Amino acid sequence: MTAREQHHRPPFNEGAEPREEPSRFGIPELAEMPDDVRAVIEDSHAKLGFVPNVFLAYAKRPEHFRAFMQYHDLLMRGPSGLSRAEREAIVVAISAENRCLYCVTAHGAALRILGKDVEVADQIAINWRTADLSPRLHAILSFASRVNEPGFAADAHEIAALRAAGLDEHDIWDVAAIVGFFGFSNRMAGAMDLRPNQEFFRMGR
Amino acid sequence: MTAREQHHRPPFNEGAEPREEPSRFGIPELAEMPDDVRAVIEDSHAKLGFVPNVFLAYAKRPEHFRAFMQYHDLLMRGPSGLSRAEREAIVVAISAENRCLYCVTAHGAALRILGKDVEVADQIAINWRTADLSPRLHAILSFASRVNEPGFAADAHEIAALRAAGLDEHDIWDVAAIVGFFGFSNRMAGAMDLRPNQEFFRMGR
Amino acid sequence: MTAREQHHRPPFNEGAEPREEPSRFGIPELAEMPDDVRAVIEDSHAKLGFVPNVFLAYAKRPEHFRAFMQYHDLLMRGPSGLSRAEREAIVVAISAENRCLYCVTAHGAALRILGKDVEVADQIAINWRTADLSPRLHAILSFASRVNEPGFAADAHEIAALRAAGLDEHDIWDVAAIVGFFGFSNRMAGAMDLRPNQEFFRMGR
Amino acid sequence: MTAREQHHRPPFNEGAEPREEPSRFGIPELAEMPDDVRAVIEDSHAKLGFVPNVFLAYAKRPEHFRAFMQYHDLLMRGPSGLSRAEREAIVVAISAENRCLYCVTAHGAALRILGKDVEVADQIAINWRTADLSPRLHAILSFASRVNEPGFAADAHEIAALRAAGLDEHDIWDVAAIVGFFGFSNRMAGAMDLRPNQEFFRMGR
Amino acid sequence: MTAREQHHRPPFNEGAEPREEPSRFGIPELAEMPDDVRAVIEDSHAKLGFVPNVFLAYAKRPEHFRAFMQYHDLLMRGPSGLSRAEREAIVVAISAENRCLYCVTAHGAALRILGKDVEVADQIAINWRTADLSPRLHAILSFASRVNEPGFAADAHEIAALRAAGLDEHDIWDVAAIVGFFGFSNRMAGAMDLRPNQEFFRMGR
Amino acid sequence: MTAREQHHRPPFNEGAEPREEPSRFGIPELAEMPDDVRAVIEDSHAKLGFVPNVFLAYAKRPEHFRAFMQYHDLLMRGPSGLSRAEREAIVVAISAENRCLYCVTAHGAALRILGKDVEVADQIAINWRTADLSPRLHAILSFASRVNEPGFAADAHEIAALRAAGLDEHDIWDVAAIVGFFGFSNRMAGAMDLRPNQEFFRMGR
Repeated sequence: MTAREQHHRPPFNEGAEPREEPSRFGIPELAEMPDDVRAVIEDSHAKLGFVPNVFLAYAKRPEHFRAFMQYHDLLMRGPSGLSRAEREAIVVAISAENRCLYCVTAHGAALRILGKDVEVADQIAINWRTADLSPRLHAILSFASRVNEPGFAADAHEIAALRAAGLDEHDIWDVAAIVGFFGFSNRMAGAMDLRPNQEFFRMGR
Repeated sequence: MTAREQHHRPPFNEGAEPREEPSRFGIPELAEMPDDVRAVIEDSHAKLGFVPNVFLAYAKRPEHFRAFMQYHDLLMRGPSGLSRAEREAIVVAISAENRCLYCVTAHGAALRILGKDVEVADQIAINWRTADLSPRLHAILSFASRVNEPGFAADAHEIAALRAAGLDEHDIWDVAAIVGFFGFSNRMAGAMDLRPNQEFFRMGR
Repeated sequence: MTAREQHHRPPFNEGAEPREEPSRFGIPELAEMPDDVRAVIEDSHAKLGFVPNVFLAYAKRPEHFRAFMQYHDLLMRGPSGLSRAEREAIVVAISAENRCLYCVTAHGAALRILGKDVEVADQIAINWRTADLSPRLHAILSFASRVNEPGFAADAHEIAALRAAGLDEHDIWDVAAIVGFFGFSNRMAGAMDLRPNQEFFRMGR
Repeated sequence: MTAREQHHRPPFNEGAEPREEPSRFGIPELAEMPDDVRAVIEDSHAKLGFVPNVFLAYAKRPEHFRAFMQYHDLLMRGPSGLSRAEREAIVVAISAENRCLYCVTAHGAALRILGKDVEVADQIAINWRTADLSPRLHAILSFASRVNEPGFAADAHEIAALRAAGLDEHDIWDVAAIVGFFGFSNRMAGAMDLRPNQEFFRMGR
Repeated sequence: MTAREQHHRPPFNEGAEPREEPSRFGIPELAEMPDDVRAVIEDSHAKLGFVPNVFLAYAKRPEHFRAFMQYHDLLMRGPSGLSRAEREAIVVAISAENRCLYCVTAHGAALRILGKDVEVADQIAINWRTADLSPRLHAILSFASRVNEPGFAADAHEIAALRAAGLDEHDIWDVAAIVGFFGFSNRMAGAMDLRPNQEFFRMGR
Repeated sequence: MTAREQHHRPPFNEGAEPREEPSRFGIPELAEMPDDVRAVIEDSHAKLGFVPNVFLAYAKRPEHFRAFMQYHDLLMRGPSGLSRAEREAIVVAISAENRCLYCVTAHGAALRILGKDVEVADQIAINWRTADLSPRLHAILSFASRVNEPGFAADAHEIAALRAAGLDEHDIWDVAAIVGFFGFSNRMAGAMDLRPNQEFFRMGR
């Protein structure tokens, strides 16, 4: 399940030779994985019908796998005043700013499913600034984009705009934490040259 | 056929109010259009089952409609050593660099159909630098991206790299012309705040 | 008339060897040109006393020559609420931002002649932000500069500022179209490494 | 121990009113903290003689405290082919690129102590490009700086340069992970407007 | 002689109201100036037929006038392996990169006169990268442009390229010093909003 | 006194070979210096206990030494409405923006001593935007940072903000002049690859 399908490339891109493995650093065999890591992978396979390549790539370093997934799940599934779809919208908008192929693809699919609005999900994946957003989601993504800039420090005015949009201090923290964590994830995907699973391109459409 | 469907927005984006018309400058009634413009629009409706919003937006200014479409068709359908899919790949890669919602969406659909490789088309729509490209397509998009930079002037080394990839002088001209013309188109779409048709998001998948 | 004069270079730039032809892609002989293209060129020679190099460069591809000139003339000479000098001011300001040698030189000459104010024309050719502008021209060039940024989409506030300066929707469209078309032209000049005619440096002074 | 000392400001900055608490989001009382969080904080106080403000700031959200500290310790203290001082050098160089006051200050102190070379530590805190670096450390920080750029994806050439400097694949992964994690940390510090403890400015000198 | 001529503005810029004085900070009366400052100003008037506005602006602060002019004359007229025209070419190229209206105008005039090649002088004033340069002048302006970037530190390779072009260490120092000093001058002109004399636009043509 | 101490490098930076001389262009022997230059150097040695490397580097070109030091002293010690500590704060903030190792180090030391607030001095050396500043110092450094941008020209609004903070026109001039002069100095330090004296890292702590 880790190998990438060979498929015919049309003339317009003839001779392209995608790397066999989804990560530059290679991926382990299922049998080599610690039990807890393998359990997560088998579980995702059972639920999705395939294993997202990010799991296989991180499984190469089980301690990193655990630290990454724990933090990821806290941010994306833990209690928060932000809905799960709003959190995915932040991930997609920031990953698009950082031009991360894997994250836009995988989280774009998640946003299409959770947000139940394919059109707006695809708009955010291209440019959140020209997407059809509610005032609340616009405020969230505007702040997210500011946090994504290097050297940013929030000022009182920016915090006030978020509070006016209905976010409390924990929600504001959560926006910043999701931006920061996925900027980290975008950079790991870049270092790994992580390839997205083909399934993501079609999910939720 | 010019009005945008109202559809239920899920809670994650509640209260979003997309503009009724696809262009900030409004769009004309079919009956108001000159015959040649209306003919193009009816023709596209017959072929695609819908009218791309860019046609409706430009129909507001028939002289502009004609100049734009004529140049567009010369570049995208005229004789060239570049395949039609390669030309669409240039448009998608550059429109993604310029973060143009309309052009990535509409030409992304065209590339999925002409290129016959949904996955690579969607990769180019996110970041051509991490797409699975043949050496020839990589050379073409690298040069395209350079032309897209303000202040660029080609040097002999860059031209030589394209010739090594099999392009002749007319092909190199065509790459530059497509980049420049769609940079123009991206900017018009931004000034119009042009909304993509929902149909594009699903075409070719 | 297409060859560039050899002239003595002073010691400060000794050994410079400008390319013989004004375009990297070469220029055709008059006799090789289609009649309509040759007619335009002979006409410009009759009016100006020389042939702007952009004509000769585009004559290499007659279909491109026709599409380019038709669009150019629509934007620069067609009916508009913008005066011809205002339109040239947009071209010069944007070409300076894009650092296009040919366009600043050729359209700088046109602006000096049409605007009848050499000093302000030369100010705009260096930096429109520090030129002595009327509130109306300042509003026009501010919006033009915004459209020139990649990823720009106009918001209601920016449109309102232009309307306050007396522009209607067609005029706003025209500003954006001129910016976009000459950004295209700047990029073609860069790909061609197009050399300006010496005559432009002196015209209108 | 959480309040910031008031001290006299000299005339050159008269009237400055630093925020009383080290984080915009406030910090909890020791008594409010879960036992495991309080234990970490008391432990750091025992070892250092003060509590780094990052601990107090994160203690506001115990689940975040745990996820952050676990990942931090894995990266900075876990097994790796990179020495602890090399890892701190990466943190300081990247935090300086991102202009993060808290991280340059706190990790600058750590680098002075672990690296046992105050001068080079302070050079890296200003600009690693002009620091007196060994070829190995220069290769590490060059790659770190590349990963820090948005949109970066490593190519084979860059990986080869690191391997030539003696790093294996795990070490390269570790460089990328430290860059990404502290880019995240820099952004959280910016969102919190996190103030560094005064003690850091003097440690290790 | 310090007041700017009022002249009719054509319709394209109707209502423009240039500031009466050439510097935001005002200029002194001749009678108020110290003798040595007034002597320099009267001398320049005798030689040029007008007083460059930079003299009048600096005369407001005689100590600054003296420090600035002394350093200026050392760099631009002192002994150096760089010809005076080469030095003016550096000033014009850097002032164009910094988009300084006064300096491009005034030193552009000087370069036209000293370089005895109006065309190349005007090319450098727009974009030195597309000017017709000798290998030596290209090497000089390439290094100048690098020094102009914030955070630049020369490496051995860049120094070697200049030596290969015939510059010795003093000449390299002189290039850097001219870039730095005129970056300073560009910034003072920006703070003063310094207006160029109309005479400069016509000199040397 | 001109040679840099060899000292043991710890394993984390093993093999680093700092250049023997503090400037890429070398430094002269004391005996070779003109009397006035040597007097300044001996005087600084007597006062500080060491000779700042910038003196030795400039002594290589005595005419440059004199012009630089005279301008420097006028700006940093001449009469002004800005305190000497405020002037050093501008130098440190701008040199940090320009990432100049020598100037942040040497003027950081001066600011720690003159400002009598080590913590704020070190904050400004990292990022003035997140330093604990008074409204006056914040206004000064905001304007300084604007002047540091290439292409800046002050507008009436920015000048008014400074006047509201208590600066008169001479003070505003002084801010701009200090920014410009030290941008020049930063660039000379970059061209010289000027190494800071070790003593600076410890002074004023």
